[in-house]
Amino acid sequence: MEIISENKCFGGVQGVYRHASSATGTEMTFGLFLPEAEGPSPVLWYLSGLTCTHENAMTKAGAQAYAAKHGLALVFPDTSPRGEGVADDEAFDLGQGAGFYVDATEAPWSPHFKMETYILDDLSDLLFSEFSLDRERQAITGHSMGGHGAITLAAKSGRFRSVSAFSPICNPTQSDWGRKQFEAYLGSVEAGQAHDASLIIGDLAAPMLIDTGTNDQFKDLLRTGALVNAMQHRSTPAQVRMQDGYDHSYFFVATFMGDHVAFHAEHLNA
Amino acid sequence: MEIISENKCFGGVQGVYRHASSATGTEMTFGLFLPEAEGPSPVLWYLSGLTCTHENAMTKAGAQAYAAKHGLALVFPDTSPRGEGVADDEAFDLGQGAGFYVDATEAPWSPHFKMETYILDDLSDLLFSEFSLDRERQAITGHSMGGHGAITLAAKSGRFRSVSAFSPICNPTQSDWGRKQFEAYLGSVEAGQAHDASLIIGDLAAPMLIDTGTNDQFKDLLRTGALVNAMQHRSTPAQVRMQDGYDHSYFFVATFMGDHVAFHAEHLNA
Repeated sequence: MEIISENKCFGGVQGVYRHASSATGTEMTFGLFLPEAEGPSPVLWYLSGLTCTHENAMTKAGAQAYAAKHGLALVFPDTSPRGEGVADDEAFDLGQGAGFYVDATEAPWSPHFKMETYILDDLSDLLFSEFSLDRERQAITGHSMGGHGAITLAAKSGRFRSVSAFSPICNPTQSDWGRKQFEAYLGSVEAGQAHDASLIIGDLAAPMLIDTGTNDQFKDLLRTGALVNAMQHRSTPAQVRMQDGYDHSYFFVATFMGDHVAFHAEHLNA
Repeated sequence: MEIISENKCFGGVQGVYRHASSATGTEMTFGLFLPEAEGPSPVLWYLSGLTCTHENAMTKAGAQAYAAKHGLALVFPDTSPRGEGVADDEAFDLGQGAGFYVDATEAPWSPHFKMETYILDDLSDLLFSEFSLDRERQAITGHSMGGHGAITLAAKSGRFRSVSAFSPICNPTQSDWGRKQFEAYLGSVEAGQAHDASLIIGDLAAPMLIDTGTNDQFKDLLRTGALVNAMQHRSTPAQVRMQDGYDHSYFFVATFMGDHVAFHAEHLNA
């Protein structure tokens, strides 16, 4: 593991690191905020959206202020493998920057696009062996495609004590943000059903908080209502807040980041 | 004036606007955060550093959270005129992105590089005519070159109730961040003495707050000690805080932004 940068930030350290991933077969870069702490810190994962790298939320979401206050570490993974030998597409929503948090089975994506395994196994193992982090206290959040990733990886792994999302893609098998990607990465939309928050939310026992803006320019692609309908069959407390006038931008994410970090801190520090 | 974007943010609006500036003879772009408010809002100006545009602090400093809490508007001007017809230099610290908040008198800079007049007259007049802002309640801050701009424009204009800076260039006539630029823009280092915070601080009656990191990679260029020596002859309360382990980055700026906004709010809302 290579240190790219480390900057003191809110009493802790905001680092950027690079490592060779066996899951993706590439070098991967991630950000990690470590609060000033004596023992191992609980961890909040933040999965980013389309076109993002590890850097967007790390610099634009204002999350470190709240994480420092509550003593949480923050992990900012990249959104796909990258590099010259890695398949890509001209569209912004397929290929590099658009991994969709699944393990691709189809050419040309399958050699490197293994983001589910990368997040849940590879990066996870690295983090808990290299840093003072508490594997028993993990939570997850994300934005847009990363909100989809947060909910689905939480449902599939069962390891996160709480789950939240900012304007998540909620029902990708019924959306142009999902159908195209599942066909490309997994060979069919049907194969994507195992990665559709609205279809697997029953597997998720953790408490949830979701914020989506009423002025979100992509709301038809997000299909928040499908997730709400599916959640009515769960018995776990959940909040879905439609935030008046907010859009899909990081100005929206930053506005409600304090609420999300506090929500996770309540469950991680309980 | 043209609206580039407006995003709801912490209950207010983060806008980006473009206007034709008579001072620079170019189109200029700026950011403005307007809090949710009934009457005209007090204004905190944020002047950015070398290589920055209106965008850096607007997206990376986390300032809107605190400004919303205290009911302040935030102005994020660009750091120079820009465009094809505007002089430039290959160095990152001269020309476009490096206006140094002075009015150039020398070729090839003098036609457009009029940043002092742009900030104090041109953009100021536009803001107070187009938006609900209180001209009687203004404060100013900035980072690095923008910290130099904040202190010197405050000393020269007398219009800001409070002044702060993050790792400001404090004594540019004795620094490679200043001597080259004053020679280019003003014809000599001597002409820059009227724009050197350490030499004109006696003209500034407003209270001040300065934060600089002990791990700042540019500390030899900042010459914070020269300003502290000069401030010992002032009778106005001031704080200069050397922050342990922090560097020159926006992770440092974001960490102490809450303190700075609260400091200005105390004077603007008094």
